[in-house]
Amino acid sequence: MPRLVMKFGGTSVANLDRIRRVAKRVGVEVAKGYDVIVVVSAMSGKTNELVGWVGETGAFFDAREYDAVVSSAENVTAGLLALTLQENGIDARSWQGWQVPVQTNSAHSSARIGAIPSDNLDAKFRQGMRVAVVAGFQGISPEGRITTLGRGGSDTTAVAFAAAFDAERCDIYTDVDGVYTTDPRITSKARKLDRIAFEEMLELASLGAKVLQTRSVELAMRYKVKLRVLSSFEEMSDDAGTLVCDEEDIMESNVVAGVAFSRDEAKMTLVSVADRPGVSAAIFGPLAEAGVNVDMIVQNIAEDGRTDMTFSLPVDQVAHAEKAVRDAMAREEINFHDLIADEGVSKVSVVGIGMRSHAGVAARMFKALSAEGINIKVITTSEIKISVLIDRKYMELAVQALHDTFELEKI
Amino acid sequence: MPRLVMKFGGTSVANLDRIRRVAKRVGVEVAKGYDVIVVVSAMSGKTNELVGWVGETGAFFDAREYDAVVSSAENVTAGLLALTLQENGIDARSWQGWQVPVQTNSAHSSARIGAIPSDNLDAKFRQGMRVAVVAGFQGISPEGRITTLGRGGSDTTAVAFAAAFDAERCDIYTDVDGVYTTDPRITSKARKLDRIAFEEMLELASLGAKVLQTRSVELAMRYKVKLRVLSSFEEMSDDAGTLVCDEEDIMESNVVAGVAFSRDEAKMTLVSVADRPGVSAAIFGPLAEAGVNVDMIVQNIAEDGRTDMTFSLPVDQVAHAEKAVRDAMAREEINFHDLIADEGVSKVSVVGIGMRSHAGVAARMFKALSAEGINIKVITTSEIKISVLIDRKYMELAVQALHDTFELEKI
Repeated sequence: MPRLVMKFGGTSVANLDRIRRVAKRVGVEVAKGYDVIVVVSAMSGKTNELVGWVGETGAFFDAREYDAVVSSAENVTAGLLALTLQENGIDARSWQGWQVPVQTNSAHSSARIGAIPSDNLDAKFRQGMRVAVVAGFQGISPEGRITTLGRGGSDTTAVAFAAAFDAERCDIYTDVDGVYTTDPRITSKARKLDRIAFEEMLELASLGAKVLQTRSVELAMRYKVKLRVLSSFEEMSDDAGTLVCDEEDIMESNVVAGVAFSRDEAKMTLVSVADRPGVSAAIFGPLAEAGVNVDMIVQNIAEDGRTDMTFSLPVDQVAHAEKAVRDAMAREEINFHDLIADEGVSKVSVVGIGMRSHAGVAARMFKALSAEGINIKVITTSEIKISVLIDRKYMELAVQALHDTFELEKI
Repeated sequence: MPRLVMKFGGTSVANLDRIRRVAKRVGVEVAKGYDVIVVVSAMSGKTNELVGWVGETGAFFDAREYDAVVSSAENVTAGLLALTLQENGIDARSWQGWQVPVQTNSAHSSARIGAIPSDNLDAKFRQGMRVAVVAGFQGISPEGRITTLGRGGSDTTAVAFAAAFDAERCDIYTDVDGVYTTDPRITSKARKLDRIAFEEMLELASLGAKVLQTRSVELAMRYKVKLRVLSSFEEMSDDAGTLVCDEEDIMESNVVAGVAFSRDEAKMTLVSVADRPGVSAAIFGPLAEAGVNVDMIVQNIAEDGRTDMTFSLPVDQVAHAEKAVRDAMAREEINFHDLIADEGVSKVSVVGIGMRSHAGVAARMFKALSAEGINIKVITTSEIKISVLIDRKYMELAVQALHDTFELEKI
């Protein structure tokens, strides 16, 4: 029988009423003839309760014990959903990570899945089981200890099962009804996308459209797992949500799929620094060690053996970054004229695989911003994304203008 | 190194403060040189929450899923205690039932422990682990599913570990400080026993002194595990609590160890029933099938081929029992004169292994009751127990009189 993976997040299984609703949805797919693997998160709030208790035991704790404690919440949901499905007459059972087994490495609290041998579940499916309810977010290490995959790891669990069991699709039920061309709170013209390419999704996710865990999208892309994001709070239909899929599965893609943004950015410029090999490493090495999330990096053309180095970072890391840079410059005896921070910028990006074959996207973008009188402070480009830093007060205006320019309301 | 098993119930681990107190107690035993196996219950209230959710899924549920859900609560306590011990500098780790493994049969929700292979824990003890924190109440079936041992099963887990690991003693920490000669609410002369024989404990437990699960005492008796019952809320000392042990370990046992009672009993008499083979079976078979907990059974001497059959039962089962008996008599066409229920009786028992070698205990008991003007309605005796049914209004008086007569305040 064809297989389907369905994943339900914490708010979708927050209480017994919602679990019953989930069971109903699963039942619809079973009735269509699918053997279903359901991956569940903890009932919302439960993981935080457990994490809180672990925190109370002390500041530094054994990640192996953390994992053993925290993973218990998913086991509860898995059992309750299996029971509810049985109550609906569906042959279902729960599976904890070690029972499947979901084999991971030993990097506790942020483990990576190595393999999911399919023998155990396959045998049960052959015996008539229609639904395997799998506790998400967890696995077992080579040492036989329980591991967890890190926050949001249930998405990754779902995709890994879809790959291991050759599922037709992996449906991620969440509290949003799909991926939008931009945040509907910024413009009412925002539209839900029917399809989006993995690469686009990765660019949008890392830019703040936090619908899916980045790792799960990467995994889906590698194994060509069709991912569908849809809401567990709306009526079911076959074309609900957004399908995240291979580029080739998108017939006619728009040049631009969406406009992403990140409000609270800052820009730092190291003015007139000696332009010699090793300078970049001397700056960004210490920043990485200090835990600063450097995003865009721009180096202007060097003049007289000196250059300006600009980078963006989250606004709340500015003080931290400034100290790291000044210390590094002193230690390495690198001379520079000034270190300037601009804490009032936002990042706006247009993303789309269509850019690869369409020239002039950047020009259209800059023209639209210029028409609104918005000054561009920094530009970076990748194959399918163009990002700019602008004054924060223009952020909404920029998003709206770009959404209009690329006619995203017509998607 | 010598081994010790310590077991902590739900109220002893109800929150992080109490878990810290438990860790301190465990640390004291580690400092004495013991390798310790700690068996923990769920934080109080947690099991009930989980059981409630399972109940919400439907009236008839899969016991395998029930076990998977409910067992998760003990895993949380085990991890939290291991973390707290580590915080105190003690090499500790948590063990879930399947990790040890605690091998049980497949009787889900009331599984019995078959074996506890010691290899895994032994290997870790050799590597320097000082404390194994074991999630109580759970195990793994031959099919690889999680099982639970039934309510109070953590006591049984503790005793089974003490037997499997040849522990010097099994300390059961609870919210009472030991086993008393009788309920201190009935007489202030009640005294805590320093030692009590397994057999006595079994008789007292089934009579209402609900300190230890009966199964755990039976298991301890079979494997000669020294059990100590003590309070987790009092100061530690080497002679705290009550040691439940083999008869041979009690130097000078009192004739009577305690006075037990059961307040809400009823007595039913089937008057003038035909005395022929099969009549007892015809009465008590249907009662057992109806779920009536028949306790004492007395048959008077037969006259003219007819006899009176009297039995005791919990007062709230009288109506149920009456119907079962009348139906059975009609079905089997057994003639009887009357069926009389007395719903106003209590049971009072004296228990003591000393009775085996001391004659006259029954006589002293009856004399003491008679001196208070208390009429005895039914008497049954076993090797180490004499029980009587009396009018309920005399129950306290009877317990006090017997406690005085056997000088239990001097224990």
